[in-house]
Amino acid sequence: MGKKTIKAGLLGMGTVGSGVLKILEINGEQVNRRAGASIEIKKILVRDLQRERPVKVDRQLLTTDPKEILDDPEIDVIVEMIGGVEDSRKFIEEALQHKKFVITANKDLMATAGVELLLLAQEQGRNIYYEASVGGGIPLIRPLKHSLGANKIIRLMGIINGTTNYILTKMSLENMAFETALAEAQARGFAEQDPASDLEGKDAAYKLCILAGLAFSSRVRFEDIYVQGINNISKRDVFYARELGFAIKLLAIGEETDKGLALRVHPTLIPLNHPLAAVYYENNALFVVGNAVGEVMFYGLGAGSMPTGSSVVADLIDVARNINHQVENGIMEIDFQTKNIVSMGELLSAFYLRLQAIDEPGVFASLATTFGAENVSLDMILQKRSVEGTAEIVLVTHAVEEKYFNLALGKIQKFPAIKKINSVLRVIER
Amino acid sequence: MGKKTIKAGLLGMGTVGSGVLKILEINGEQVNRRAGASIEIKKILVRDLQRERPVKVDRQLLTTDPKEILDDPEIDVIVEMIGGVEDSRKFIEEALQHKKFVITANKDLMATAGVELLLLAQEQGRNIYYEASVGGGIPLIRPLKHSLGANKIIRLMGIINGTTNYILTKMSLENMAFETALAEAQARGFAEQDPASDLEGKDAAYKLCILAGLAFSSRVRFEDIYVQGINNISKRDVFYARELGFAIKLLAIGEETDKGLALRVHPTLIPLNHPLAAVYYENNALFVVGNAVGEVMFYGLGAGSMPTGSSVVADLIDVARNINHQVENGIMEIDFQTKNIVSMGELLSAFYLRLQAIDEPGVFASLATTFGAENVSLDMILQKRSVEGTAEIVLVTHAVEEKYFNLALGKIQKFPAIKKINSVLRVIER
Repeated sequence: MGKKTIKAGLLGMGTVGSGVLKILEINGEQVNRRAGASIEIKKILVRDLQRERPVKVDRQLLTTDPKEILDDPEIDVIVEMIGGVEDSRKFIEEALQHKKFVITANKDLMATAGVELLLLAQEQGRNIYYEASVGGGIPLIRPLKHSLGANKIIRLMGIINGTTNYILTKMSLENMAFETALAEAQARGFAEQDPASDLEGKDAAYKLCILAGLAFSSRVRFEDIYVQGINNISKRDVFYARELGFAIKLLAIGEETDKGLALRVHPTLIPLNHPLAAVYYENNALFVVGNAVGEVMFYGLGAGSMPTGSSVVADLIDVARNINHQVENGIMEIDFQTKNIVSMGELLSAFYLRLQAIDEPGVFASLATTFGAENVSLDMILQKRSVEGTAEIVLVTHAVEEKYFNLALGKIQKFPAIKKINSVLRVIER
Repeated sequence: MGKKTIKAGLLGMGTVGSGVLKILEINGEQVNRRAGASIEIKKILVRDLQRERPVKVDRQLLTTDPKEILDDPEIDVIVEMIGGVEDSRKFIEEALQHKKFVITANKDLMATAGVELLLLAQEQGRNIYYEASVGGGIPLIRPLKHSLGANKIIRLMGIINGTTNYILTKMSLENMAFETALAEAQARGFAEQDPASDLEGKDAAYKLCILAGLAFSSRVRFEDIYVQGINNISKRDVFYARELGFAIKLLAIGEETDKGLALRVHPTLIPLNHPLAAVYYENNALFVVGNAVGEVMFYGLGAGSMPTGSSVVADLIDVARNINHQVENGIMEIDFQTKNIVSMGELLSAFYLRLQAIDEPGVFASLATTFGAENVSLDMILQKRSVEGTAEIVLVTHAVEEKYFNLALGKIQKFPAIKKINSVLRVIER
C-alpha cells in the first residue's frame, strides 16, 4: 500500500517557490522520512524559462504551460504560489476537478474565495492546505484547526503585517519619525515600493478574513471588517502611549460576542506587559483566547522565502501522509455559517485622545463635563505645560460603547477652545 | 462509513480529567462536529467512588477496576491522567495490546518511557497522543511534529515551568524576595507544597526530555540534561540583570551542534527585548529556531485543568478522525536515534558574575588579567561605590567555552581580596 513517490507541480517560482526548493534541497531527507514517501517536484510553472533563478533547478522541470501540470495524471498535488485571484483560482479549481490535492500560499485568494474552494475540494474528496497563506512560517492554520479544536474561540488579536510592525517598532524603540521608518523598511525589503495596502491595514484585513473565518466557523468577507491604517500615527503618540504604559500596534482583532462577530484592523494601544507588545520589528504574532485553553500566542516571521516555504513543505508532508493513508476528506473547517457582524458603534472600547487646546480657565472642565454627559469616564490624563498659549492634552477613557464616545467627541470638536484633535486611537487593556 | 460514536475510557479524574469532562460539557457539540463522530465517555477509573467531584458526572460511569476499561472491546481510546510511571505504564501497554489508541497527559512517563511506548504503539498499529504531557494547553507537540516538520531544529529554549517563572516574575516586576514570591505562588496554587522538583529545575528537565527527543529525533534521558535550579537567585541579581538589559528566566535549552546535543536547564540572563523575556507569571513559552522557519514561539498557560484539558480533547478529536479514516499508523516520531551528548565544559556561553571584593588598588586589574589569561573577555562591568571597604562587582563576559571560564573562576576564588562569589549565571544574547 501507499505510494513511494508523491509528485508535486509547482505553480510559480518566485520568493516562496525558491524557499520551497531550497528547503527540499537542504532538508529533503528528513522531509521524505516524515512524509513516509519521496516528494518529487515534477514540473514548475514559470513565466520566463530563461530567467536566472536564486536556486538551481533542472531546466527540464520548467514549463510555461499550466496544462503540463494540471493535466498530468501523475501529479498528485499542486502548490499554487503565483498570487492574484484569477489565474490562481482557475488553476486550483482545475486541479481539484482532476482530483489533485492543493497547497496554496495565496492570501488574497483564500480570503476572497476560500470557502467556495474548500467546498469544491470537499465535493472532490480532496483538500486545500493553506498554512502559508497567512503568517508566513508561523503555525496558525493547523493550531486553529487542530490543537485548539476543543475550544470556542472568544477572541483573536494579531500583529499580522510585518511592514507596519517594523515601522511602529522603529518609531517606538528608536524614536524614529514615521517617514524615516517607512523609508528604512523599504530599503531593507520589509515594505513594498507601494506600501499602501500594508499601511492602510488592508493586508492585515485579508489575513483576518482567513483567520476569523476559521476561528469562528463563519464566512468572513473583507467588507465585514472595519479597517484603519497607521498613516496618521505620529512619534508623539508613540511617546505618550509609552509614558502611559502602552505600546501602539496595528492589531487585527476578531471577537465573537452575543450580538455576533466584531472584526477590525486598527492601530491599538496595548499594555506594555501584554505579550503582543514584545513583538518587535518585522515579526508577527497571533494571540488567541479560547474558552478552555485561555490565552495562547504564536510568534514568528510572517513572511519571507524560507519561513513561508517552511509552511508549504509542512503542508506537502501532510498531503503525502494523507494520500498514503487514503484520507480522502480531511477538511475540518467546512461548516462555515454566516454570522451576524457587529457594527463598530456597538463595540466597547477605551480610547486614547490627543488634542490641542487654548490654555484658558474652564477648558478642561468643559471637556470633562461633555464626556461625563455621554457616560464616558476618564482613566488617565496627561497635560504638559502649555507652549505659546496652547496646551497639549492626552486622555485615556475607560471602555465605552463607541457611539457614545463619538457623540462626545463630536461636541468637543466644536468647542472654540479646542484648536485641533490630533489623534483618536483605541485602547485594549488585555 | 466510519464509526458514529468513539468510546473513550478515562483513567483518572483529578485536575486534568475534570477539565476534559467540563470541556466536553460546554463545547461538546463543536468537538463532535470536528471529530466527525460523537465522543462518548464510557467509563472513568477513579480511586474513590464516593468522593465529591468538581464536575457533575453520572456515577454509573465510575469504576475502581481498570479492567472494566482496558478489557472492554467497545472502548476505542483510553485517556491516561493518573500520573506516576508504574500503573500508568502498565495500563497504557495493556491498552495498546488491546489495540486501543492512547492519550496521555503524563510528563514523567513520556519523559522516561516514551520511546518504548511509541515503539509498542507502532507495533500494534496504534498511536499515542501526548500533547497534554508538556506545556498544558500550549500546542507544542503537534507543531513540532507537523507544522515545523520541514525544519531541522537548531535550538529550543523553553520557559516550561510555571512555578519558577511566577517566582522570577514577582522578583523582577514587583521587587519581591525569593521566599515571599515562593510563598505567594504556593498560596495561589501555582507551586506545590513541596516545590523542590520545580525549583531545582527537574520538572523542566523532564519536559525537555520530551521536547528535545521530538525536535532532535533522539532518545533523550533525564541524565543527559545538566540541571540547575533557581534556589540561589537573589533579588540583587534580578535587579542588576535588569540594569544591564536582561531578564533572568529558568530556561530549558536544547541545541543540536556539530558535536551532538547540548541539553540543559538553568537560570539564564536573556535580553529584555527577547520574546521570552516578556513571558510573565505562570505563563510558559517555547522558543524554537528552525533552519527554514527561523525563530518561532508558542506561548500560553502550561498547566491547569482547562488548558491541559484543551490539549487532551484536541487529541481526542484527532483520535476520532484517525479511527474513522482508518489511519492505523500515524506515528511520525519513531526514528529515534541516540545522538551524542555535549558536555557543559565544551559549550559556548557568556557569563554573569557577581562578587564581593575588598576595595583596594589592583583588585580589578588582577581580575581582568586572570580572565584574560584564559581568553575570557569582558563585555560589561558594573561597580557601585564600596560599602565599608567592600565593593560589589558585577561582570558579564563574552561567550567562551565554559571550561575556560571555570578555570579563570577557580583562580579568582583563591584571591585574598575576593571575599565572596555571590552568583554565577549563564547569559544568552539571542
